[in-house]
Amino acid sequence: MVATDKPYTTIGTRPVRPDGADKVTGRAQYGADLSLPGMLYGRVKRSPHAHAHIKKIDVSKALALPGVKAVITNADFPAADDVIEDLGESATNLKWLLDNVLASDKALYQGHAVAAVAATDPHIAEDALQLIEVEYEVLPPVLNVRDAMLDSAPLLHPEMRTVKMLARFVPGPERGDKATNIASTLQFKHGDVEQGFAESDIILEREFETTMTHQGYIEPQNGTAFWNSDDELTVWTSTQGAFSVRDQTAKIVKLPVSKVRVVPMEIGGGFGGKIPIYLEPLAAILSRKTGRPVKMSMNREEVFEGTGPTSGAYLRVKLGAKRDGTFMASEAFLAYEGGAYPGSPAGGGAVCIWGPYEIPHTLVDALDVVVNKPKVAAYRAPGAPASEFAFESLVDELAETLNMDPMDLRLKNAAREGTRRTDGTVFGVIGNIQTMEAVKNSEHYRSEIQGPFRGRGVAMGYWGNAGMESSAYASVVADGTVALVIGATDIGGSRASHAMQLAETLGIPYEDVKPKVVDTDSVGYTGVTGGSRTTFAGGWAVYEAAMDIERQLEERAAAIWEVDRDLVKYEAGGVNGPNGKRFSFRELATQLPHTGGMIQGRADINKSTQGPSFAAHIADVEVDPETGKVQILRYTALQDVGTAVHPSYVEGQIQGGAAQGIGMALSEEYFYDEQGLMRNASWLDYRMPTTLDLPMIETVLVEVPNPGHPYGVRGVAEVPIVPALAAVANAIYHATGVRVQKLPASPRALLEELLDNPS
Amino acid sequence: MVATDKPYTTIGTRPVRPDGADKVTGRAQYGADLSLPGMLYGRVKRSPHAHAHIKKIDVSKALALPGVKAVITNADFPAADDVIEDLGESATNLKWLLDNVLASDKALYQGHAVAAVAATDPHIAEDALQLIEVEYEVLPPVLNVRDAMLDSAPLLHPEMRTVKMLARFVPGPERGDKATNIASTLQFKHGDVEQGFAESDIILEREFETTMTHQGYIEPQNGTAFWNSDDELTVWTSTQGAFSVRDQTAKIVKLPVSKVRVVPMEIGGGFGGKIPIYLEPLAAILSRKTGRPVKMSMNREEVFEGTGPTSGAYLRVKLGAKRDGTFMASEAFLAYEGGAYPGSPAGGGAVCIWGPYEIPHTLVDALDVVVNKPKVAAYRAPGAPASEFAFESLVDELAETLNMDPMDLRLKNAAREGTRRTDGTVFGVIGNIQTMEAVKNSEHYRSEIQGPFRGRGVAMGYWGNAGMESSAYASVVADGTVALVIGATDIGGSRASHAMQLAETLGIPYEDVKPKVVDTDSVGYTGVTGGSRTTFAGGWAVYEAAMDIERQLEERAAAIWEVDRDLVKYEAGGVNGPNGKRFSFRELATQLPHTGGMIQGRADINKSTQGPSFAAHIADVEVDPETGKVQILRYTALQDVGTAVHPSYVEGQIQGGAAQGIGMALSEEYFYDEQGLMRNASWLDYRMPTTLDLPMIETVLVEVPNPGHPYGVRGVAEVPIVPALAAVANAIYHATGVRVQKLPASPRALLEELLDNPS
Repeated sequence: MVATDKPYTTIGTRPVRPDGADKVTGRAQYGADLSLPGMLYGRVKRSPHAHAHIKKIDVSKALALPGVKAVITNADFPAADDVIEDLGESATNLKWLLDNVLASDKALYQGHAVAAVAATDPHIAEDALQLIEVEYEVLPPVLNVRDAMLDSAPLLHPEMRTVKMLARFVPGPERGDKATNIASTLQFKHGDVEQGFAESDIILEREFETTMTHQGYIEPQNGTAFWNSDDELTVWTSTQGAFSVRDQTAKIVKLPVSKVRVVPMEIGGGFGGKIPIYLEPLAAILSRKTGRPVKMSMNREEVFEGTGPTSGAYLRVKLGAKRDGTFMASEAFLAYEGGAYPGSPAGGGAVCIWGPYEIPHTLVDALDVVVNKPKVAAYRAPGAPASEFAFESLVDELAETLNMDPMDLRLKNAAREGTRRTDGTVFGVIGNIQTMEAVKNSEHYRSEIQGPFRGRGVAMGYWGNAGMESSAYASVVADGTVALVIGATDIGGSRASHAMQLAETLGIPYEDVKPKVVDTDSVGYTGVTGGSRTTFAGGWAVYEAAMDIERQLEERAAAIWEVDRDLVKYEAGGVNGPNGKRFSFRELATQLPHTGGMIQGRADINKSTQGPSFAAHIADVEVDPETGKVQILRYTALQDVGTAVHPSYVEGQIQGGAAQGIGMALSEEYFYDEQGLMRNASWLDYRMPTTLDLPMIETVLVEVPNPGHPYGVRGVAEVPIVPALAAVANAIYHATGVRVQKLPASPRALLEELLDNPS
Repeated sequence: MVATDKPYTTIGTRPVRPDGADKVTGRAQYGADLSLPGMLYGRVKRSPHAHAHIKKIDVSKALALPGVKAVITNADFPAADDVIEDLGESATNLKWLLDNVLASDKALYQGHAVAAVAATDPHIAEDALQLIEVEYEVLPPVLNVRDAMLDSAPLLHPEMRTVKMLARFVPGPERGDKATNIASTLQFKHGDVEQGFAESDIILEREFETTMTHQGYIEPQNGTAFWNSDDELTVWTSTQGAFSVRDQTAKIVKLPVSKVRVVPMEIGGGFGGKIPIYLEPLAAILSRKTGRPVKMSMNREEVFEGTGPTSGAYLRVKLGAKRDGTFMASEAFLAYEGGAYPGSPAGGGAVCIWGPYEIPHTLVDALDVVVNKPKVAAYRAPGAPASEFAFESLVDELAETLNMDPMDLRLKNAAREGTRRTDGTVFGVIGNIQTMEAVKNSEHYRSEIQGPFRGRGVAMGYWGNAGMESSAYASVVADGTVALVIGATDIGGSRASHAMQLAETLGIPYEDVKPKVVDTDSVGYTGVTGGSRTTFAGGWAVYEAAMDIERQLEERAAAIWEVDRDLVKYEAGGVNGPNGKRFSFRELATQLPHTGGMIQGRADINKSTQGPSFAAHIADVEVDPETGKVQILRYTALQDVGTAVHPSYVEGQIQGGAAQGIGMALSEEYFYDEQGLMRNASWLDYRMPTTLDLPMIETVLVEVPNPGHPYGVRGVAEVPIVPALAAVANAIYHATGVRVQKLPASPRALLEELLDNPS
């Protein structure tokens, strides 16, 4: 660990997480653990076809089954009649939001929900699914972006016209004039790429492809709802964002947000995939129909087929450089699958593609293309793994062509403070160069790799990190502790990272802060746990809440001492007054009940940006030439993490991200047949790397504090997935001479390449 | 209703309560509704003797019963070895607090808990009780205060020495020197009573007696606890004060308060009786032993025998007056039962006894005396019903003696602003005279009562009302509503009364405020729902939280308008700026997400006092001379309620209080045999008045706003029990000529009096 000398007491230590005991003893309550009096069990009827008109749904036989209390279709949704006219508006238009939850006129992917049932018993509900009769008119599916962009392609949404985005998430007024599967296009342009390529000595241009992959969280989606007779809806669910579930659900069940209360249960992984809603609104409408609470959970097959993985992508990337290695121009065409509805992370891919580099002339086009697969969801640095895989492969090829050390080439072109990002914004203080230098200084990079079919790859990764809104409410307790209330789902230790920042601010022990994640009625608005924002934004909110407490403690101490308020200052875990007067936090806390009452602090912060993150991975691999299987021999992940609040959890995020990136590189893929049916929707057949497949991922924390945060925090959780794809692909090249341009480099695929290109 | 013209929009209206739908549909979760995974069921072994040494407890047979997971006795409590040396200190000393939960060396009343068991099934737990073998040495009990004060009385606590209280709840250093059952004495003295009586033309002196009575809440006590492996204790219970349960439980299970989280379930009545802890610490220790959640509930017999009713009392009262009716002096000796441990409401009785009157010379002695009955708890205006019954009976007798209208006599001597209370404090703005005048102006009082064995009685009541600490946290929601978080158990509509005061302050509709009662980790300290303080103090807290929101809304509006912050002012449900700029609350709320984020307000208020309440009751009765049964013919309760926030709930409190007071007057009593065994521990035999026994209680709300509250709120819930005892007793006198000096005037008792004193 490369740590700066931090001026902190608690930040940077590795205490036990507050929810640890509950989680290791099985007491933590996940969505599936919930049980309510009179509860019904819901199940979902799903489309067996990748693309079909829904002609008719007959629920009568299902309703006749004893124990079945309700069956719903899209028409049961209060919002079904309110479909927004301007369907091209955005990925959040009401029809698409609702149709992905429960299909109306068309089933757009295998596994698409078409009806839902609630029964007194989960087995009855399961049986009832067979009795729901759906009449389909099967249509030809389109399964990848290149096919989908053809004029001859089957159209998923005949009404769709291409939207020309002005910036990420900002649709412009311009629309294409023909029916298409291209939901939107986005272009970022700087300088003059033609001139840049003209001035280049070397130009490389390659095509790449990645496949749809799933986040692979252990816990399936779940949602329980109770629609009370006063139209107050309560939803219990394992989600990355209770407020986001509240807002989305309110929209399609047509309630004001204040009528929807979402209770976040513990969550068994999300990685972006537990931001959208699936079962929650179904359970809500089933509950409204039955007057009883309705609980729903998916099985693994439903998770694969019916929730949002990340896009496969087609990428064409071009890089021009001087003979000394100076990057002159880059150009990219990125087409990402949105799945059945718009919403691909093409914009993320475009913003990040050459983030670690300063390039004078750049042009990137990013397309969001619909195909007959599940609507994609966020997945760890959405869009970046694919585009950066492509560009980092080119950088590696360029280094080889120029016979330069690949890290020296990167350092020569490294983005730094003041470098303009692809989207036009400018970097502040970043740790890109420090991370690159950490690679060069690392024992791993300096070591030799030897032996046949062995090779080492390196790659960089960049991700911007989100800011967004978080709230905190903290109450001083008379025993000298603080009860902290937050709204952020704790996926990877954020209770601890919040508590640590509160403790640091107040100068009290970490153990004296008791954090609690509450429902949407009990704390101020808090955005999703995602975008690597939670420790950043939540930490800032608790910092401000602590400052609110400190001001009041100063006032109280002044009142107790009967001195001027301005002579009293909170410092170093206590209040100082004139003439050496001092209360420690605990001393003053114990006096509060008798001197006017307890003190609470509150804060709501909302930052549009935060500090970007850079990562570098070093992968050593060995390829079995007889099977195409790639073994990771050694793997080091280096990353600028800003300030590592809880280094163990930062390391865990990095290791998890690297493992997922390795999965994308080597084994994970949605395997579809020609009818668009997924053939590997199980843990056994969808091959995620396990501990048996990976060495211990070594981590190096580079700490370049983010000046835009009270404690220098940067998001850490997303960027570690990014470099893994290219690092592994580059290592495979150096082991075998084969440049993998299509992922995953599964044994089958790689063996084919090896046979085509004998080394 | 005598209402002032209130300058309010929401306050004074009668909206539906937020918890209404849940409660009428059976969805509200009471303590007994709770179910947790792996839950065990606890039961309590209780003493069959009123007074006994516990020689030995053998739990081995119980432990051997299949399904039994743990049996505990007093020795299992971590605090058992920490008994405070100075046992006379106060009613809250650790040994007494713990021993009342689970007896150590002595069982001090029938029903006293001596052991507790947890088993996999409630029936097994019940069976196990029979297998717990307790060896007792039975001692003679003492069952009333007069016997208990005799030198020859059996001693409950041989180590007890009388504490001379300096003021209510303030023990002085002085101690008696002999073993006694008199736990404490308290004296208030003003002027010179000897001189006052010397200057009196008429002196009346009488003895009175009241009996132990129970609050009679419908829902029995319950408590569920889970002691986690990291020593975090969670307690679910139906309580009047989650923070109070937290603090008491923490003390006897020896955890810091921050390690105890109390989740308040809905509560089916309390009236003071659900402030102490009974089952909660037993469930906690059983959970610690078993590692599983333990749920406990009482049955009705246990509620009667094992929880805290209010004291019976012996009262000797003397009143001297001039012939024109001017009160010159009063003197009282009040001995209240503490039950098995100190803690009677003698102090309350002493403070209130002649509260409605101005008397130059007064002396009152109040004694707290232990007897072999359950330790008493608070019960609606604790102590006041008994002492004011006594004094108001004397006032009635004096009026008759002087041939004055009893209300004219009262008005002549009425306490007013500036009158010194018995305890030395001075009244501020009070509605005593207005309430008395309301009686005189009432149709009821002006009407005639005719017929044999019919009579009318009137009486006044006074109660001080508590202030204490309450917190509030409120979040603005983007749809223009407010989510309000409070810590006060809602017994009688306080969610509504809080929401109404928040709505009034912000100038928004009541329906736009969504109040929520949360656990002790999720909101700032909030005292018990009791002392008639909740709408007063909680309302003040939400007022301050709203002001905190208004300040921030002003800042936000100034930022949006880009004008000086001082030019912006929150008024009338919105923000006004220069040049006619205005945002309604809802308009600005919808802009918050995009202009910096949402806004929250917080407040903690802690007031040592609030506005006192005065009540007057008019009772018309008919007595059946052949059975002694008293029928209430008509009943009117008049009361200064300050500002009636929600008049329906105020009227409900008054009606409920009057009904309970009538029960004390006519039918309710703890009936003990000579061995100290309660013979009527069931709803059938403990006769509470039902709707079949009572006419509709008419109410008159006199509104003299409390200047010590933003909305003029006074507590309303306690004082309406006070006048009922004397009003009924005085009515019986005017119907029969019998002055009832011992309550209840049950048919049996009254018939005896009628036979002894034929009219």
